[in-house]
Amino acid sequence: MIRSRAITFLTDFGYEDVFTGVCKAVIDRVDPEIRVIDLTHGISPGGIRSGALALAAAVHYSAPAVHLAVVDPGVGTDRRALVLSAGEHFLVGPDNGLLVPAAERLGGAEHAFEISESPARLIPTHRTFHGRDIFSPVAAELARGLPPEELGTEVDVTSLVRLDFPEPSLQEGLLVVHVLSIDHYGNLALNAGPELILGSFLKDGETVSVEVDGQEVVEVPFGSAFGEVEAGQPILFPDSSGSLALAVNGGSAAAEFGLSPDDELHIRGS
Amino acid sequence: MIRSRAITFLTDFGYEDVFTGVCKAVIDRVDPEIRVIDLTHGISPGGIRSGALALAAAVHYSAPAVHLAVVDPGVGTDRRALVLSAGEHFLVGPDNGLLVPAAERLGGAEHAFEISESPARLIPTHRTFHGRDIFSPVAAELARGLPPEELGTEVDVTSLVRLDFPEPSLQEGLLVVHVLSIDHYGNLALNAGPELILGSFLKDGETVSVEVDGQEVVEVPFGSAFGEVEAGQPILFPDSSGSLALAVNGGSAAAEFGLSPDDELHIRGS
Amino acid sequence: MIRSRAITFLTDFGYEDVFTGVCKAVIDRVDPEIRVIDLTHGISPGGIRSGALALAAAVHYSAPAVHLAVVDPGVGTDRRALVLSAGEHFLVGPDNGLLVPAAERLGGAEHAFEISESPARLIPTHRTFHGRDIFSPVAAELARGLPPEELGTEVDVTSLVRLDFPEPSLQEGLLVVHVLSIDHYGNLALNAGPELILGSFLKDGETVSVEVDGQEVVEVPFGSAFGEVEAGQPILFPDSSGSLALAVNGGSAAAEFGLSPDDELHIRGS
Repeated sequence: MIRSRAITFLTDFGYEDVFTGVCKAVIDRVDPEIRVIDLTHGISPGGIRSGALALAAAVHYSAPAVHLAVVDPGVGTDRRALVLSAGEHFLVGPDNGLLVPAAERLGGAEHAFEISESPARLIPTHRTFHGRDIFSPVAAELARGLPPEELGTEVDVTSLVRLDFPEPSLQEGLLVVHVLSIDHYGNLALNAGPELILGSFLKDGETVSVEVDGQEVVEVPFGSAFGEVEAGQPILFPDSSGSLALAVNGGSAAAEFGLSPDDELHIRGS
Repeated sequence: MIRSRAITFLTDFGYEDVFTGVCKAVIDRVDPEIRVIDLTHGISPGGIRSGALALAAAVHYSAPAVHLAVVDPGVGTDRRALVLSAGEHFLVGPDNGLLVPAAERLGGAEHAFEISESPARLIPTHRTFHGRDIFSPVAAELARGLPPEELGTEVDVTSLVRLDFPEPSLQEGLLVVHVLSIDHYGNLALNAGPELILGSFLKDGETVSVEVDGQEVVEVPFGSAFGEVEAGQPILFPDSSGSLALAVNGGSAAAEFGLSPDDELHIRGS
Repeated sequence: MIRSRAITFLTDFGYEDVFTGVCKAVIDRVDPEIRVIDLTHGISPGGIRSGALALAAAVHYSAPAVHLAVVDPGVGTDRRALVLSAGEHFLVGPDNGLLVPAAERLGGAEHAFEISESPARLIPTHRTFHGRDIFSPVAAELARGLPPEELGTEVDVTSLVRLDFPEPSLQEGLLVVHVLSIDHYGNLALNAGPELILGSFLKDGETVSVEVDGQEVVEVPFGSAFGEVEAGQPILFPDSSGSLALAVNGGSAAAEFGLSPDDELHIRGS
């Protein structure tokens, strides 16, 4: 028998404290049948944008679930607490842009609910730990089947806080992209999706010229896996979500090129 | 159907080795129905005190469960291995003070059992990994319903090793507190509980003067969430367990003030 | 009712990204009844050898399970993707030596199957994330009971890639051993198993002389737990898997002696 929806769980709580464990204990107390799937708790502290990108990358692979995400530097201020519905999925977290890219990946938020005063919340509700006192119990009630209408007050989906992302561009043989995020291996995810790659001059096996930070120019082959170049050599390729990535085989492209999120790269055919 | 008790799991084993995974495999072998809720495995190596505080902060939010905690620098010596019962909860771990604050949070240890020779232990029992060979199988048997009397020998609860914590004081407008622990964000938990806050001169919206390490004096507002002050500014507030905390909005109070556990702060009304 | 086999899960994916979470979501989508037991995701990036040793240390404690292991710097090249069967266990991962020591610990690989084109794989199959697209769905199908013959093509077990490990030796009162791995506490696992310890001059309570890196000679007692020596003092002892280990009580032997994996130690009776 397939049981209740799973809860996927993503935070910037880190691994040193009991914050995530306490949230899971709260969920378990609502219903011990609920499965919690940890996506990551290693989002950089307060990193709303990298959390939003990570969540959006993950939800595509999930069966219908409740996606609980807490990167919430504004906790305790008047920022709203939300449930979004998107197809058969729910997203639960703060109204700071964190949930929106994932909702869009799931087809777009259809309904939004303000849950700051949810009947499911823990009382007393501490102003600095909504992850435990609001988001976790609400996620648990959704996972066991309560409709979001019973957990909050509907608000307009057009009123959601959205993040600004830099825009890539392709003009006259110049592809301008930006670093979206950096993974554990130092691989750089760039903001050029599958369509932009297909429509550009990037061809398998050909070498392009990459200008980093307006200064350094390096010749980099475009391929499909870092194993195609020698150890220590850079390569551009479509990563596992189909977007352009820059990696160094066996090394860290982030360290090698000194790049951080939002940094701009100019790529030219050569 | 609500199944067996969950096991919450807290250690200083870290995340690089298979120590926690092996313990979970041992538990799974006893009964695959048992849910394991990881509290954290990131307690600093040998940090009995920070482990004890973290466990005590977590158990309050748990349904009746078995709390398995292993921060055990004395493993292999003659320190005892224990099960404590507290209400409907059990605590399992070494007799070095780690379990006692959590037991007190649960109403106090009612019974204690020495389990070094437990019939549930793995044979051979290695002297350096009681987490795997004694604590995990005993916790699993408790979770599936065996009474502690069948798993060890009762010992006097007054004989338990207890930790020394510094004592806060409030006299003539001077509140002396100490750093209990530091979380992942650099927020400082201080040893002033809800009663001491209520009985003191700390009033919402007012500013007090904080003397750090007998030297630096800073003016800090008392509020209820770090979002109430500008980025980079310090604030005192009751944290999510109701105790006094010192934080820097968007920053690390630990780094800003150079504070470590046990450091003393003098707080005066101003 | 004992449900499907568990999946144990070991990678070098780290804890900052959603890689492990996405794999778990893929497994959950195949069958939400499958239990996933995280062994560790903190293997050093590309550390095939330390991953292989960690996996081998863990499987012994597991009930019959599917052991999913991904340390895969050659992903996207023509290295094979494998299922190995060993007794009632299965191992799933790349053909780079990672799985072999664990298979040997379980009695030896009996059958091997190439799964790069498995009918269970996700389509499209990205060249750089076989953990998600091949290994996880295949592991999930094995856990729910599909036979490996339906998931890949049998290949010769003698054709598996194997790792080279340094060989220990014992001659004329000289025990030559090497550092196999270093744990979170800085304890050093050496490549002398239980038989070599028993056959050597190492006797409980006696002191031997250890030459590190051909230079430093220290006198170290052989005992059974680090708590037997003073804080800061070194000790040799059989670790929790029965192999020889060098530790410093309350400290890091790796830091103290400046040792890395593969470094050689000469041990003499004194």
